[in-house]
Amino acid sequence: MEPAMGGTLATSRDVARRAGVSQATVSRVLQGNTNVSEGKRELVERAMADLGYRPNAAARAIRMERTLSVGVVVADITNPFYPQLLEAVSQELERVGAHMVLWNSDEPGHAGVLEAVRRGSVDGLLFTTVSELTEPLAESLRRNEPVLLLHRGLDTIDCDQVTSDNEHGARMVADYLVGAGCERIGYVQGPARAGTALHRDRGFRGRLAELGRPQAEERTRRAGFSHAEARGAMRELMQCPEPPTAVFCANDLAAFGAIDGALSLGLRVPEDVWVVGFDDTEMASWDAYSLTTVRQPIDSMARTAVRRLLERIDVPDLNPVKRNFTCSFVVRGSSAHTPFPDSH
Amino acid sequence: MEPAMGGTLATSRDVARRAGVSQATVSRVLQGNTNVSEGKRELVERAMADLGYRPNAAARAIRMERTLSVGVVVADITNPFYPQLLEAVSQELERVGAHMVLWNSDEPGHAGVLEAVRRGSVDGLLFTTVSELTEPLAESLRRNEPVLLLHRGLDTIDCDQVTSDNEHGARMVADYLVGAGCERIGYVQGPARAGTALHRDRGFRGRLAELGRPQAEERTRRAGFSHAEARGAMRELMQCPEPPTAVFCANDLAAFGAIDGALSLGLRVPEDVWVVGFDDTEMASWDAYSLTTVRQPIDSMARTAVRRLLERIDVPDLNPVKRNFTCSFVVRGSSAHTPFPDSH
Repeated sequence: MEPAMGGTLATSRDVARRAGVSQATVSRVLQGNTNVSEGKRELVERAMADLGYRPNAAARAIRMERTLSVGVVVADITNPFYPQLLEAVSQELERVGAHMVLWNSDEPGHAGVLEAVRRGSVDGLLFTTVSELTEPLAESLRRNEPVLLLHRGLDTIDCDQVTSDNEHGARMVADYLVGAGCERIGYVQGPARAGTALHRDRGFRGRLAELGRPQAEERTRRAGFSHAEARGAMRELMQCPEPPTAVFCANDLAAFGAIDGALSLGLRVPEDVWVVGFDDTEMASWDAYSLTTVRQPIDSMARTAVRRLLERIDVPDLNPVKRNFTCSFVVRGSSAHTPFPDSH
Repeated sequence: MEPAMGGTLATSRDVARRAGVSQATVSRVLQGNTNVSEGKRELVERAMADLGYRPNAAARAIRMERTLSVGVVVADITNPFYPQLLEAVSQELERVGAHMVLWNSDEPGHAGVLEAVRRGSVDGLLFTTVSELTEPLAESLRRNEPVLLLHRGLDTIDCDQVTSDNEHGARMVADYLVGAGCERIGYVQGPARAGTALHRDRGFRGRLAELGRPQAEERTRRAGFSHAEARGAMRELMQCPEPPTAVFCANDLAAFGAIDGALSLGLRVPEDVWVVGFDDTEMASWDAYSLTTVRQPIDSMARTAVRRLLERIDVPDLNPVKRNFTCSFVVRGSSAHTPFPDSH
C-alpha cells in the first residue's frame, strides 16, 4: 500500500535526535516494548508529538515483523449479503497483505471487539452493522482509532462512512410499483435500529406520499432482516381481507422469506403477488426467486472502504469522508418483468 | 479456557533457573523479543527443551497482553454452508475470548496464510477446505504448528480432523432413491480435489453398485461446488433422450443450482424430477427449494473442532485424533415426501 502522504514528514531518526535517544529506543517505544524507562518513553512521545511524527502503518508492520490487521464486524454472516461484502473486503485486504479479524455478532457491546480496541490488537476497524448503541464504535471514536462504517452509516457520527444511497434506492421502488399500476402495495419494513432500514423506509414512504399514495399501515409489517420473520409477516399480509398485490421488502433476505411465505400459502409470484427486495445479492438472480431488487454496488463499496481505512491507519487525522454510492434497479421475474417506468 | 494439563509441568521460573538467566529474559524469549543475546536465547531454548516446558497459550496470551488468535481458511464464503460453519466456529472462539483471522480463498498456496504460519502471527489454524495441494497446510505440519482439518479431511495426513461421515451419508441417498423406486438416477458429482466430494462419490456409487444399480455415466456430470455449474449440468442432464427422474447433487449449493436448472427449462420439482442435496444448510428448508438432503451436524462439528484446536495449542504433542460425525437424512418436498425406506 502506498499511503497518501505529502510534505516533509518526520522520520524516526528525527524523533531520536530530538528526544536525545537512540533510534533503537524509538523503535522499542513504537513497538510497545515495556523494556524502556518511563523517562525515555516520555521524551520519545513528546518528540513525536512536537514533530507530528506519523509512523507509516504498513512499513511499521513490516519493521515489526507483524501484519497489518483490520477488524471487521458483521451482524449476521448467514444473511447472504454479508458473505458477498466480506468476500470483496477480504480480496482488497489480501491485495495489500493485511489480515482480516472477523467478528460475527449483533451485540452492540461486543466484548471481543471492545477488548481488541482497548488492546490495540487491530490496526483499524470496519463496522458493517452499527447503530448508535454500538459500544465498540463509541470506544474507538473516543480513542481516536481508525474506524470506518461500511454499508450501514450513521448520520449523527462524524467518521469515514461508505454507504449506498438507500433512500434513493427505495424511492425507485415506490416509483416502479406505482408506475406499474400496483393497486395495493404491501411493505415488510426492516428493523428499527438499522440505519439502512431507516433510510429505505424514509425513501419508500416519502416517495409514495409524494405520489399521493401514502403507505397503508394495515398493509405494513415490521420484521427483522431475517427470512423467518419476513416469511411470517408475508403470511399475515396475504391473509388480510384485501391482500397486497405487490410487496416491498427492506432487504433481499426478507424478500426471499416473503416469497417463501407466499409459496407456503399456495400462492404464486408474480401471478398472485409481486415481491421486490433490496441489495441484489447473488441469490436474487437464482431462478427459484428471480427477485426484482435494488442493486447496491457491493464490490465498489467494499474496495473503497478498505482503501480509505488503510489511508486513515497511515494518516489518522484525515478529515472524515462520507461516500454514498448510487443504487440501480434490477427487474426480474418476481415482478412480471414490467419495464422500469420513466417517471421520477 | 482451561487447558487439559496434568502432571507436574515446568514453569518459566524453572526454565530461568536451569538456564541461569532472569525470568524477564525467559519472557523476552517467549515473546519473540529480539532484544536478547543469541547466547542467552540458546540457553533458554535448551532449558525449555530439557524441561519439556510448554507455555499455556491462553495464559501466555494474557501475560503478553495479546489475544489468542486462530486462523480459519475457507474456500468460498458465498457457499451458504461456510457462513453457517463460520458462525458456529466464531461463537465457540468468542466463548474463550479468541480472535478469528479469516482467509477466504481457494488458492492452495495462499500467500497470506503461508505468511501467517511463517511469522507465527496466529496461534493455530483451522482449514475447512484443504486438499493435498494446500501449501500452508504442508508448511504448518512441517513446522509442527497447531492445525486442524474441519469438514474436509485428508486420509493421507496424520493430524487432528473433524469431519462428518460423508461416505455413509451418500450411501443413504443411494438407499433412499433406489428404495423409493427411482428408475433413472442422475448425479451431479462434486469437484475432483475436494475430499468431501470424493467420499460422497465413493459412498453413492459404491452403494448403488451393491444394490445392482451402478451409476450410468451418461446420467452423470461433474460440476464444481457452484450454483452456476450445477445449474448447467442439470440442464444438460434434463435434455438427454432419457432424462433422470431423480438427481443427487454432491452438496446443497449444487442442488439449488440443479433445481434452478430444472425450473429454467419449465420443469417442476418434484413432479418432473426429484433433487437431493448434501449438507442441510438453512436454505435447504426454505419453501422455494424445500430440499431433501443429508444433514451434517455443523454446530457440533465446529464446536468440537475449536475445542480440540485450543487443546492442541496448549499441548502441541497430543496424538492426532480423527472425529467423524454421523449424518442423518432429511426428507423434504424436492423428493415428493417419500418416507425413508428401512432397507440398508
